[in-house]
Amino acid sequence: MAIHPLWAQYPDIQKELEQTQKTIQHAIKIRNQDIQTVLSQFFESGGKLLRPAFFILFTEFGTVPSQKRKHEYAAALEILHAATLIHDDVIDDSPLRRDMPSIQALYGKDIAVYTGDFLFTVYFQLLASAVQEIDTLDFNAKNMRKILVGELDQMHLKHNIDITVKQYLRHVKGKTAQLFQLSCVEGARFAGCTKRQQLLALRIGYNIGMGFQILDDILDYTATESELKKPVLEDLKNGHYTLPLILAMNRNRQAFAFLEKGTDLTDDDIQQAVTLIQRYQGVEQAIVLAERYTETALKEIKKLPDIPARHILYDVTATLLKRRD
Amino acid sequence: MAIHPLWAQYPDIQKELEQTQKTIQHAIKIRNQDIQTVLSQFFESGGKLLRPAFFILFTEFGTVPSQKRKHEYAAALEILHAATLIHDDVIDDSPLRRDMPSIQALYGKDIAVYTGDFLFTVYFQLLASAVQEIDTLDFNAKNMRKILVGELDQMHLKHNIDITVKQYLRHVKGKTAQLFQLSCVEGARFAGCTKRQQLLALRIGYNIGMGFQILDDILDYTATESELKKPVLEDLKNGHYTLPLILAMNRNRQAFAFLEKGTDLTDDDIQQAVTLIQRYQGVEQAIVLAERYTETALKEIKKLPDIPARHILYDVTATLLKRRD
Repeated sequence: MAIHPLWAQYPDIQKELEQTQKTIQHAIKIRNQDIQTVLSQFFESGGKLLRPAFFILFTEFGTVPSQKRKHEYAAALEILHAATLIHDDVIDDSPLRRDMPSIQALYGKDIAVYTGDFLFTVYFQLLASAVQEIDTLDFNAKNMRKILVGELDQMHLKHNIDITVKQYLRHVKGKTAQLFQLSCVEGARFAGCTKRQQLLALRIGYNIGMGFQILDDILDYTATESELKKPVLEDLKNGHYTLPLILAMNRNRQAFAFLEKGTDLTDDDIQQAVTLIQRYQGVEQAIVLAERYTETALKEIKKLPDIPARHILYDVTATLLKRRD
Repeated sequence: MAIHPLWAQYPDIQKELEQTQKTIQHAIKIRNQDIQTVLSQFFESGGKLLRPAFFILFTEFGTVPSQKRKHEYAAALEILHAATLIHDDVIDDSPLRRDMPSIQALYGKDIAVYTGDFLFTVYFQLLASAVQEIDTLDFNAKNMRKILVGELDQMHLKHNIDITVKQYLRHVKGKTAQLFQLSCVEGARFAGCTKRQQLLALRIGYNIGMGFQILDDILDYTATESELKKPVLEDLKNGHYTLPLILAMNRNRQAFAFLEKGTDLTDDDIQQAVTLIQRYQGVEQAIVLAERYTETALKEIKKLPDIPARHILYDVTATLLKRRD
């Protein structure tokens, strides 16, 4: 149950995340042995635990009412994230996740659909245990709804060469920023921080989430498979037209007309698209936009009270959003 | 938005269910037009609204704190049911649901997976709005978990000719009885009924659910397609070995050895299984067991206070569990 090396230099946070891992492992216990094994492995397979970590970091700006409930809430956020990942892999027929075969590759879509559903119930259950005000639950439910609406919108945008930057950004918000934002703001709220701090937490989470996802989409074009620990160019193959492609298409839509074929893209088509994205500097342009979110996040973090958590937040955000693999 | 004819003779309940339908339609509003249309149609396509109806009937034994919240809770239960149906259809590749093409047949598994997920969030959101005690949410979460554990267990039992009656009944409990039980007991709890009445509600819901699902499994063998409004012999084809088959196999397992082929069953195999089930009186035996649950449910209903809701409960249960189509 090793915690991702990202946290090695912050022993206090590492300890909190170990506790969160234990809470996760306890919460996913289920009599069905296959699912038990696959879920245990999934949660031990070295995710960065970013959502629990941001939640915990923001609780440091106030006073938490209960350590146990804090870890339950942190665990719930990671479990909600996992549920959406597992269902995403069903949709995309992804063979790999975190350098391991995905659940649907191992056990088929049937098990993967129900396993994701099961995790939604675990999220719900942990939350009901962690939270004492109905308001918080309502806020979580609304956020979860926005995440799913984001996923559904994405279906519309698949294989759609007319996708605009605005549509893409709205999708990124639903897919990633929403849950980062929830994690940060709920940390602040859980610890009874001021309204101003909660608002800062919300903005910081939003900007980290946006920057993080855009970078992830960039890495799909620039990283090698062993760096990324998942297949590269997968977005393009699955018809997810992300920022580097959109920005390149904006410079010469005609050149990309062959993408209209949609699902029948050959390997040559994919290679052709990559060449064109390079020619029209799709990646370079996307990096400019990603950096804008990163800079905003870092600027807002500096407005937080000057305690150790602020510096960890700052360093981790800078590291995450400047990663190249 | 016509309510199922089952409720035509109970105008008060019919009115409550119309209100519940309105709450459902409002709660599923989403900017994605395709999903909006498909969900509206799904909820208008004549389901019996049994779970909301049982919830509402049990609220009659106490005093509800708010009409609006009552309808939200009733709507939430139907929406949870719908979410599991939609995912079941993904797993089974079912072409039909309620006499219409299933969502996954119309739009593919991708949309169907996310639509089910979306409904989980709507359930969660309605519940957070309807409920004022965290305890109730926790109870719902635990029940939802049991439903999903039931679904996951079922995967193990697929194409498994060694399935026992005990395993089958445990599965039926998770798949159907759990949510009927939740609906009944939560109706009683929501209206502040006595502990004794809540316990009765739980037992009644459990027995109705068990009887209802066993009968449903029987009808898959005995009804015609137009009666059932979904394909017949579908369970057998999908490898769901239900009570009529299990009881027939218990009389001569050898004769059914050809089912070991699992997914490669031909139409002749299916026909052969049907013939053998008739020979070994699988359906007749299953009816005996279903009737035991029905009788228990009816006996327990009689222990409730003598108000109109009790008589409606009694009549509807008798009608439902004696239906032949």
